[in-house]
Amino acid sequence: MTELQAWVAAAEAAADVAGAVIRPFFRASLDATQKEDRSPVTIADRTAEQAMRAVLAERFPGHGILGEEFGLDRPEAALRWVLDPIDGTRAFITGRPVFGTLVALLRDGVPVLGVIDQPITGERWVGVLGESTRFRGPFGGRPGCRPCPALAQAELSCTSPAMLDAEETPRWQRLAGAVRRVSWGGDCYAYGLLALGQLDLVAESEMKPWDWAALVPVVEGAGGRVTDWDGEPLRAGSGPRVLAVGDRSLLPKAIALLAVPRR
Amino acid sequence: MTELQAWVAAAEAAADVAGAVIRPFFRASLDATQKEDRSPVTIADRTAEQAMRAVLAERFPGHGILGEEFGLDRPEAALRWVLDPIDGTRAFITGRPVFGTLVALLRDGVPVLGVIDQPITGERWVGVLGESTRFRGPFGGRPGCRPCPALAQAELSCTSPAMLDAEETPRWQRLAGAVRRVSWGGDCYAYGLLALGQLDLVAESEMKPWDWAALVPVVEGAGGRVTDWDGEPLRAGSGPRVLAVGDRSLLPKAIALLAVPRR
Repeated sequence: MTELQAWVAAAEAAADVAGAVIRPFFRASLDATQKEDRSPVTIADRTAEQAMRAVLAERFPGHGILGEEFGLDRPEAALRWVLDPIDGTRAFITGRPVFGTLVALLRDGVPVLGVIDQPITGERWVGVLGESTRFRGPFGGRPGCRPCPALAQAELSCTSPAMLDAEETPRWQRLAGAVRRVSWGGDCYAYGLLALGQLDLVAESEMKPWDWAALVPVVEGAGGRVTDWDGEPLRAGSGPRVLAVGDRSLLPKAIALLAVPRR
Repeated sequence: MTELQAWVAAAEAAADVAGAVIRPFFRASLDATQKEDRSPVTIADRTAEQAMRAVLAERFPGHGILGEEFGLDRPEAALRWVLDPIDGTRAFITGRPVFGTLVALLRDGVPVLGVIDQPITGERWVGVLGESTRFRGPFGGRPGCRPCPALAQAELSCTSPAMLDAEETPRWQRLAGAVRRVSWGGDCYAYGLLALGQLDLVAESEMKPWDWAALVPVVEGAGGRVTDWDGEPLRAGSGPRVLAVGDRSLLPKAIALLAVPRR
């Protein structure tokens, strides 16, 4: 097994344990009056991250680990795992099987490996820098972004208008006004669908490293691109604005519309 | 078999044939440049509606049938089937397994039977006026709306902000400002989740009879209520504004916030 194969196997093992933790909490009976810090989603999120950390630290004690819930271990390590057990809290809380578990590996700040796992449907995307993205799941779909040379033909997705602040909203709306259609919701699942050629654009904000790190190798291994709204590649420290395109020729067109208007 | 049982069996048979038609088109390779009227979703939608009409007309030649694609047959019939083969076109087109096939039966304009079917995940809700809603599916969830006495604890869902016109948007935003959290996307699936106690409120507009008819028996058989934004029950001719609550005590509070402000 090469070093890279060992990383991929560990990322998949981490996603596996996260799924085992998360599944019993999905659509569990909830009391709407439950306090947020005692809620099933909080318990599932924290327990799943601890389980993922244990899997990765056991295999690679020298690697760094950054997770949404428990912060950064070994900040000096050149290889850093970046974890989000439940990306799409709203989807999880409301019983929609379109949230995801995200596992990424950064090398010197560059995403080299990403897994998007949907533990309820059993769908999983695995992306590795320089390789073709792999996908498996029971509902069909084949990895590979589709051609979409014109914005007027593009399907755009965004998780929520509340992601966009007052400065970003008009910029996003210029892009939305140029596309064929906009769909809402999605979180990491939308980037997975873009990597299956089902969507052409995702433009979002409020994205933390654990939200975007796994998406980059998945989308780029399917032929697309993930950058910030200025077209810059995403590296440790990037964000919060993320733009994904399936057809790379859409990138300059989308960036031009997302640009801050000149005064 | 009683008359009602025969209706339920026919509604489920109609959903079955629609699913068989629709499934091969889900996540099929799409060319983003495809014309809308030749698109897979249009073909799936029209073919599925024809198949559903055939099933229902063969069993109940005297009943009326209203469908989104092929209009109204036998407008004079007291019993009228109302069909939407693919509710959630955006979700279907973008490969999200959260659209639905809707089958409803109206008697003298009143919804007495509704089926929400998700043909990809295999989830199905069956609601009958005066009976408890039934649900089956591989991802868990039990029928029954949850208690949520206060808007501040409520999870609100809406398919898209583009559903709301300039007059409706500020009314909807007053409601959104009073709830715990808003999630986007969903179509009929959101009403199914409300009937599983996963969501507390759905407030939408641009709803046609084939969009809302099946939702009423499903939600009300789970203990919730579906009305227009004024709290009026939905009958043939109602719409376009639809409000669903899981906890009936939320209804007057939601209506008060959705009311047109006095000048």
